[in-house]
Amino acid sequence: MNKQELINQIYAKKSFLCVGLDTDIAKIPEYLLEYEDPVFEFNKSIIDATAEYTIAYKPNSAFYEVDGAKGWLSLEKTIAYIKEHYPEIMVIADAKRGDIGNTSANYAKAFFKTLNADAITVAPYMGLDSVEPFLNFDNKWVILLALTSNKGSKDFQYIDTDRGTLYKTVLYKATEWADSNKLMFVVGATHPEELKEIREILPDYFLLVPGVGAQGGSIEEVAKNGINKECGLIVNSSRGIIYASKDAHFAENAAEEAKKLQQKMQLFL
Amino acid sequence: MNKQELINQIYAKKSFLCVGLDTDIAKIPEYLLEYEDPVFEFNKSIIDATAEYTIAYKPNSAFYEVDGAKGWLSLEKTIAYIKEHYPEIMVIADAKRGDIGNTSANYAKAFFKTLNADAITVAPYMGLDSVEPFLNFDNKWVILLALTSNKGSKDFQYIDTDRGTLYKTVLYKATEWADSNKLMFVVGATHPEELKEIREILPDYFLLVPGVGAQGGSIEEVAKNGINKECGLIVNSSRGIIYASKDAHFAENAAEEAKKLQQKMQLFL
Repeated sequence: MNKQELINQIYAKKSFLCVGLDTDIAKIPEYLLEYEDPVFEFNKSIIDATAEYTIAYKPNSAFYEVDGAKGWLSLEKTIAYIKEHYPEIMVIADAKRGDIGNTSANYAKAFFKTLNADAITVAPYMGLDSVEPFLNFDNKWVILLALTSNKGSKDFQYIDTDRGTLYKTVLYKATEWADSNKLMFVVGATHPEELKEIREILPDYFLLVPGVGAQGGSIEEVAKNGINKECGLIVNSSRGIIYASKDAHFAENAAEEAKKLQQKMQLFL
Repeated sequence: MNKQELINQIYAKKSFLCVGLDTDIAKIPEYLLEYEDPVFEFNKSIIDATAEYTIAYKPNSAFYEVDGAKGWLSLEKTIAYIKEHYPEIMVIADAKRGDIGNTSANYAKAFFKTLNADAITVAPYMGLDSVEPFLNFDNKWVILLALTSNKGSKDFQYIDTDRGTLYKTVLYKATEWADSNKLMFVVGATHPEELKEIREILPDYFLLVPGVGAQGGSIEEVAKNGINKECGLIVNSSRGIIYASKDAHFAENAAEEAKKLQQKMQLFL
């Protein structure tokens, strides 16, 4: 998926919503446990119910790896389902990978070829040769961690360096590696002031913004501080949508929550 | 596995060698491709041949994920095989994970419970709550990236901060989180001078040292600069051992390479 296709979808759906498929088998409706692959059944229902409000799905690999090979199969099937039924929707593998070049090349193949995701989140700590193999795929995206939504973001990301805080050094350095057609950055919704400043530093890059909902960030604050002329935002909500209810109406309820967010978003588009 | 068990094994085998199971299906002997799970068959032969010289095996998750669910199955079987036949040997999942607390808790369960690894490598960028869930398991280890062996280590890890270079800030901060009974650090063999200084900062922690062999580091330099009174080193070699040859004698040849390294190591123990 290229940048223009992403932008077209955002304006067609009047949405910059990403639904996080952090599917925890302990939190899904009990009656799904009778299926051979409850996680996949759950995801399918959530996807069908929310696709009209959603421009990206973001499965986080941790929630699949916890079930081992079986979980990876659920992940493979989930991505294949999205690609078959909603090929216009971006699939972001939230995997936060990064390793020496030779190894990152295998991760890139795992996520871009084997799983067929459109984008992957990558951790910056190991530098260019850990990121580069992911940049060598056409129409695929690297989403580099810059300023994350969690409390621990204070531990290292705000450390002072010659070029400002560490997360700014990451921004400056990584924008030398790739332009806004291949690279995006993660900026948590829990840091609205910093988001504004990051947008000034990076007028053209898309930002993936997690942390709305359960983690306390607000869509209005994010949109006000982060939007650019091409939208430039993908705002993720996971738990607030997919666990809207735990009964037979879980998918409808998820759709309602997704719609509420989409309706807030369209005011900014 | 606790620290004393690890030390006992090191002195019993007179070795601090870790064999990296970075098994690439394109690089294994062709006749193994006839098996249902060639990667597992290869690993089994390598493990049986090298176990007497080896105190840890380190499968890197990238080389398994590249085959999707099937690859994860090979990884599960490989770890189960080590645990069944060589329970004294440490299994390090080289996964470089790290995410918000709720998500890292799932990674911890994936690697420590589902896969039953003894240790996992973790990326520090997201701070304490991304690392803490891994620390909540008894007799399991976090091996935090500090100074990695790759070229890209220069990009961020050497940035100046108030407490010295960034990797030193990582060391200082993380040693507040856990002592040397739960936490180790990755320090690449390609930085011998820095290794010496790191050992002065961290007299008691074990260091996992990759980068010997194909990446250019030397065992003598590492041992001279990094050893402490309990050894305190786990030195990894991957490609130099497991791809010593590509014919029917690949396992014997791997054993010879492992033995050569072990014999260099015993001079320091």
